[in-house]
Amino acid sequence: MKTIGYAAHSSDAHMEPYHFERRALRDNDVAIEILYSGVCHSDLHTVNGDWGPQPYPLVPGHEIVGKVIDVGSQVSDYSVGDHVAVGCMVDSCQSCDQCEKSEEQYCRNGMTPTYGSPDRISGETTQGGYSKHIVVRQEFVLRVPEALDLSKAAPILCAGITTYSPLKTWDIKEGSRVGVIGMGGLGHMAVKLAVAMGADVTVISRSSSKEKEAKASGANDILVSTDKKAMKDSACAFDLIIDTVPVKHSVDQYTPLLDIDGTLVIVGQIGPMDESMTAPLVLGRRRVAGSLIGGIKETQEVLDFCAEHGIHPECKVINADQVNEAFDHLRAGDVAHRFVIDMASLSV
Amino acid sequence: MKTIGYAAHSSDAHMEPYHFERRALRDNDVAIEILYSGVCHSDLHTVNGDWGPQPYPLVPGHEIVGKVIDVGSQVSDYSVGDHVAVGCMVDSCQSCDQCEKSEEQYCRNGMTPTYGSPDRISGETTQGGYSKHIVVRQEFVLRVPEALDLSKAAPILCAGITTYSPLKTWDIKEGSRVGVIGMGGLGHMAVKLAVAMGADVTVISRSSSKEKEAKASGANDILVSTDKKAMKDSACAFDLIIDTVPVKHSVDQYTPLLDIDGTLVIVGQIGPMDESMTAPLVLGRRRVAGSLIGGIKETQEVLDFCAEHGIHPECKVINADQVNEAFDHLRAGDVAHRFVIDMASLSV
Repeated sequence: MKTIGYAAHSSDAHMEPYHFERRALRDNDVAIEILYSGVCHSDLHTVNGDWGPQPYPLVPGHEIVGKVIDVGSQVSDYSVGDHVAVGCMVDSCQSCDQCEKSEEQYCRNGMTPTYGSPDRISGETTQGGYSKHIVVRQEFVLRVPEALDLSKAAPILCAGITTYSPLKTWDIKEGSRVGVIGMGGLGHMAVKLAVAMGADVTVISRSSSKEKEAKASGANDILVSTDKKAMKDSACAFDLIIDTVPVKHSVDQYTPLLDIDGTLVIVGQIGPMDESMTAPLVLGRRRVAGSLIGGIKETQEVLDFCAEHGIHPECKVINADQVNEAFDHLRAGDVAHRFVIDMASLSV
Repeated sequence: MKTIGYAAHSSDAHMEPYHFERRALRDNDVAIEILYSGVCHSDLHTVNGDWGPQPYPLVPGHEIVGKVIDVGSQVSDYSVGDHVAVGCMVDSCQSCDQCEKSEEQYCRNGMTPTYGSPDRISGETTQGGYSKHIVVRQEFVLRVPEALDLSKAAPILCAGITTYSPLKTWDIKEGSRVGVIGMGGLGHMAVKLAVAMGADVTVISRSSSKEKEAKASGANDILVSTDKKAMKDSACAFDLIIDTVPVKHSVDQYTPLLDIDGTLVIVGQIGPMDESMTAPLVLGRRRVAGSLIGGIKETQEVLDFCAEHGIHPECKVINADQVNEAFDHLRAGDVAHRFVIDMASLSV
């Protein structure tokens, strides 16, 4: 199938229109017309080559919402016209212990990312959601509940699941005390999800400039990390801290905020971190952990959870030709919402 | 009561005989004649001033085994002649949530360390086990089971509980895969305890020079951390790694050895750690944690566990006047046993 997308042709990360072919349907494939595609900070990291060399031309995008336009002969769960979604993965081995418990993101044989990775059968490079169409095996297709606004659902597929999964792993519930560092794409979803789980949520930020957005998302409070007295007064105040900062930083100012046995989960930065002090860990049996998106079953769960609780990411819908501007804003770190490309703005 | 100990008089850490008074018995106190006192690496750190300024003269020692010689009017659990022990703490608030669940090491109001800290009632500086006698409130006195050899039991009070507690916290049992970094005082106890719990234990060491000691302690294998191939082949091999290294280091070579959801627990170093990479944490939901000794109930549990399983620390009994030499060996890091001072070598 002929399609069109926006691709980076080198690590300068400038996106340009790109005509390419999607594979012919396999028996277990679902062909999707993409309606909306979220713009994730990791798209910028990847096309920039921050996480290693890439197979250019590369079409990024792993927050995909669309409509089924065709299905393979063995597809039983989806029909033409269904509203569906695709997240950060499009395949995995489907046979290891991790895949068997639907933790495909930790597949022992390596999951296949939605873009920039060899397809497990053909070896072709996978291409992502900044495009008009995509073809994905049915096991990696999600159902979009009717209650969700299609134009705002896409970021749930990455920003949503990336924060939902650690909230579930660390058993956040009524009365849990959750801190969220950073109020960007991931941070604001962490706040909304944790609030819906009944947690008492505080946004931890370098300044109070995002207080309004924080409270609008349901946070009870904002803790300004440059206010030494406030930070000291918040010692032992959290059961879980979700750290969404996407660049190298120190966790030393945050770990004392954890209560005994509390955990700080890194979900934003994949790379080096500053030197750190062990004293807050040892003296309070505190933990620093990481977490990667979530499995397919859990991704369906967060879509359903958002529908049930009326949660939508804060989105700004843009046309496909505005994607380079969106990247500029991500570089500047000045957004408390997610850019979502309206694919109606792009024609084959 | 008049007594004698070995004290440091300044941060040069040189120990000299020191005559001093132990407090008169309070109603809930137990007076103990110390028979054996273990020499812990943290004694060296403390008297050196590595962890902050100290109230010299300072008698270190928090691995104490002795005999009851007197009890206060309200002491019901101990009688003259009983074999008892004292570990790293001699008091806590006894009323916070942590104390109520016998996690006195994490007391909200700060536990009182066995030496170098103000007594909660008199304000006098507590003095430790490198001495002939000690007076401790009954709640912080442990019972030494008959099956334990008194001359070898003292290190259980710190090296034992410090490694037993994380093994229990992270639910080590039959078939668990445990790595132990370092084969010193803490490391060899971690190996013996984890083996007794039914775990498959591997010692991780810079060279194979401690292979014999590792296997004698029950380890199945030794993994040499400078052998790049062996390290790569051991990716995802452990559920829990106990990191006993007592100096600044990097955990980056160790975190990939953890399986998905695995934890590396720091029990040796209280201070700065090198820069680290988040990728192993994020890509495998791995965790880095700390752990501090253990509560009083759990300390009694490890004493009983050692008695039941015939576990004794590897000890080298020395006379009190050899303590400075013992410190030299700890500085050099060349010992796979614990020095234990025989207090019969010291007279008031």
